[in-house]
Amino acid sequence: MLKQPAYQNVTPEIAEALAAIAGKKYVIYHDPENLEAFSHDEIPGTEYRHMPEAVVRPETAREIAEIMKLANREKIPVTPQGAGSGLSGGAVPVRGGIVVSVDRMNKILEIDRKNMMMTVEPGVISNEINECLKEYGLFYAGYPMSLETCFIGGNVAENAGGGKAVKYGVTSRYVLGLEIVTPTGEIVELGGKLVKNVTGYDLVQLMVGSEGTLGFFTKIILKLLPLPKAQADLLGLFETLEQALDIVPQIITGTGITPTSIEFMDKNSVKAACDYLNETIPYENCGAMLLLTFDGPNMEQVENDYEQVGKFIEKHGVQEIYVADNPATTERIWKIRRNIGEAYNIISTRQSGEDLVVPPAEISKMIAALQNITGKYGIMAPCFGHAGDGNIHARLVGPPEWSDDKWKKTLPLILNEIYEKTAELGGMLSGEHGIGHKRKKYMKGFVSEEYLNLLRVIKRGLDPNNIMNPGKIFDFF
Amino acid sequence: MLKQPAYQNVTPEIAEALAAIAGKKYVIYHDPENLEAFSHDEIPGTEYRHMPEAVVRPETAREIAEIMKLANREKIPVTPQGAGSGLSGGAVPVRGGIVVSVDRMNKILEIDRKNMMMTVEPGVISNEINECLKEYGLFYAGYPMSLETCFIGGNVAENAGGGKAVKYGVTSRYVLGLEIVTPTGEIVELGGKLVKNVTGYDLVQLMVGSEGTLGFFTKIILKLLPLPKAQADLLGLFETLEQALDIVPQIITGTGITPTSIEFMDKNSVKAACDYLNETIPYENCGAMLLLTFDGPNMEQVENDYEQVGKFIEKHGVQEIYVADNPATTERIWKIRRNIGEAYNIISTRQSGEDLVVPPAEISKMIAALQNITGKYGIMAPCFGHAGDGNIHARLVGPPEWSDDKWKKTLPLILNEIYEKTAELGGMLSGEHGIGHKRKKYMKGFVSEEYLNLLRVIKRGLDPNNIMNPGKIFDFF
Repeated sequence: MLKQPAYQNVTPEIAEALAAIAGKKYVIYHDPENLEAFSHDEIPGTEYRHMPEAVVRPETAREIAEIMKLANREKIPVTPQGAGSGLSGGAVPVRGGIVVSVDRMNKILEIDRKNMMMTVEPGVISNEINECLKEYGLFYAGYPMSLETCFIGGNVAENAGGGKAVKYGVTSRYVLGLEIVTPTGEIVELGGKLVKNVTGYDLVQLMVGSEGTLGFFTKIILKLLPLPKAQADLLGLFETLEQALDIVPQIITGTGITPTSIEFMDKNSVKAACDYLNETIPYENCGAMLLLTFDGPNMEQVENDYEQVGKFIEKHGVQEIYVADNPATTERIWKIRRNIGEAYNIISTRQSGEDLVVPPAEISKMIAALQNITGKYGIMAPCFGHAGDGNIHARLVGPPEWSDDKWKKTLPLILNEIYEKTAELGGMLSGEHGIGHKRKKYMKGFVSEEYLNLLRVIKRGLDPNNIMNPGKIFDFF
Repeated sequence: MLKQPAYQNVTPEIAEALAAIAGKKYVIYHDPENLEAFSHDEIPGTEYRHMPEAVVRPETAREIAEIMKLANREKIPVTPQGAGSGLSGGAVPVRGGIVVSVDRMNKILEIDRKNMMMTVEPGVISNEINECLKEYGLFYAGYPMSLETCFIGGNVAENAGGGKAVKYGVTSRYVLGLEIVTPTGEIVELGGKLVKNVTGYDLVQLMVGSEGTLGFFTKIILKLLPLPKAQADLLGLFETLEQALDIVPQIITGTGITPTSIEFMDKNSVKAACDYLNETIPYENCGAMLLLTFDGPNMEQVENDYEQVGKFIEKHGVQEIYVADNPATTERIWKIRRNIGEAYNIISTRQSGEDLVVPPAEISKMIAALQNITGKYGIMAPCFGHAGDGNIHARLVGPPEWSDDKWKKTLPLILNEIYEKTAELGGMLSGEHGIGHKRKKYMKGFVSEEYLNLLRVIKRGLDPNNIMNPGKIFDFF
């Protein structure tokens, strides 16, 4: 059987070479205190933490290319890292080696208003993109829940979904071009300022969602849309989560209207986020909430859309329904939704954040099965997520009375049952958070060995020494 | 230097083996009259025609897998073929061997109304998809101009664009899952009935647009949308093509409204199509036309959209503007648009159909350069295409007084000049027709050697013997 050849360590000589490439002040080496910040992402607990041997913070594609050539020659693992806001261990250096942080590559290079495109470096904070586009009447449709901290490079690496994917789709739809640095240190342009392009295979789309295993993104060309001039939200309260979710697949087929967002939150999720934010909303005691957003070029159209959808929902068992049509109220509700994950992250380290995705019409069945399984084991599983996309974020939370040992032994059993059901319903392991290190061992329950072999063939072709973000998604051999 | 090992011919024994797999009546061998139909696509003339040695028409993925295993073992080229309506020689067996026609794999396998998805075989005619969806209030947003004849499998293989991409995007946006047969004969499932999925690299998107070089598509899962209940078209007449095109990039940024289509046709294109269809439209004598489509969930919204856009265009130099808001008139105009290509195909074999794509805001500059270059050489170059996408279909037509020899010698000179300008404007060789055999030799003017090497690495990994559709897009070595 083929085996990974041994990696080399980052010697003082290598650290010097890195300093020669990127500048001494941008290399961290033999400095555990400062290296620690690059050893983890947002997965709670210490299990998925791994210290890098060195961190380098380059400023240009050329510097990254030199780093990759060095690392490839010396067989040292390199892990790209953005904001460290991931939820799959994707940017954690599980094999040690070098972390290349793109935090200094944070420039918006161009806003091309005529073509409705922009070019950015990977370290731009996602939220900044829309902040600076406002004055041009344009917007970028990506809306990950961590938008206030995450980097656009990470959004592209994970193919982030988020809150507006029902109408606008996920990150991949908006990435038209990339400048990449390959694992062997070549700088290559993919795609361009083109809304259509079949000049060769679509390597842009192969790179999107490749979780930093196939190349660095050093420039990203994003497609923009006209900024919707009007927006409103509907908040529907339901007695049970099942009632809320049963309605979801019917909304679009029943009305012909595609909302911008269809989010759901169960009672526990809303409560956790409200506690975390010190926020009170009068309706936090219902069984479950649906949050629907509508946007469009004018308020008449938005009103027409939400009224029709509102009527439809009223006919199908909603308890109460509220309209939020001013930015302050809208932002208050969305802030609750965006902070559920964060709220749970600090509650307990005995938890597992799931990112299941099923065919949208199966979401109610999936949640019922999930509650059934977790109930059987006596653990809590608050659920929230992107109902319109069939994307469920469940938090499996270990009871306080359990020992660490019991939690570690029981969790895989629970996950196996949940994943088996997910696959049975035609679902997959991750909708938007990625496989990374955390979910790798569960891949075989969802995809065939033949599929994994195709991934391997591509990875081995592009990264023959397996130095780029090794240990993620699948085994190299 | 590495070289392609010699291919084997299709011997009578191989033909027998094919018959054993797919049934004797579905194999054509030693029968030039019946093989001829599989030797070409819709490129006019004989230059790009190549006879297959055998044709096989399987019915199942399993049969295709057996054919591929046989061909891979015996080193025989295999070229997948759909309707033969391509415009790049992509489905033409340039190295002989076996053509595998998917014309018998023409079943709509499932319409999943709840998930708004459908599963089809590759040989379904694209237009049939929407015909059968009407009664469900759903639609598939692909709209290639050849929709009455082309197969959905070919649309996926070429990542077809077409007339509605301004609003709805190209084919890739709607392909959620594929069952493929790899060049080595493995059946592999990619993606699924999922609107989000990051469980491994996005091989679905790698396959879309791979022009039959990486695998057969034996099942295709398509995302559907609610059928727009209202539609209307605006037809704007302009004195010159330049005036018409100058306005295009401003329409969306200026109004905030994204039309479904923004098509353009110059005078000669309209005339050719009208002659071909024996159609008369009163306004065929203007310098250029823009055709804009609007659709939506109700006529109020569509009216609001086209009125706003209409007003905007009126302010910017339109001669006359017509509204077509009934299906009969709409279909008459669109039929003209759809048949321009067909009209030119029969006019002359001394022509080259181009599929240039540039950043949308550069389309006017590109057309001016194109007219300048072709004028210098004294040839006609009627232009039409998808203005909103920056996608120009120009037909370079050789003057009747030129000898064949002169045309063959001059065309590459003209193309080189046009392509150089296209690349200079940030454009690419093909927006939606594909590279295939026809455009392969021009790839190096648009993409880097490093990019081509990435394509080769992927191709060699998936198809080590280079038996699947060899001779297309790039050279294997």
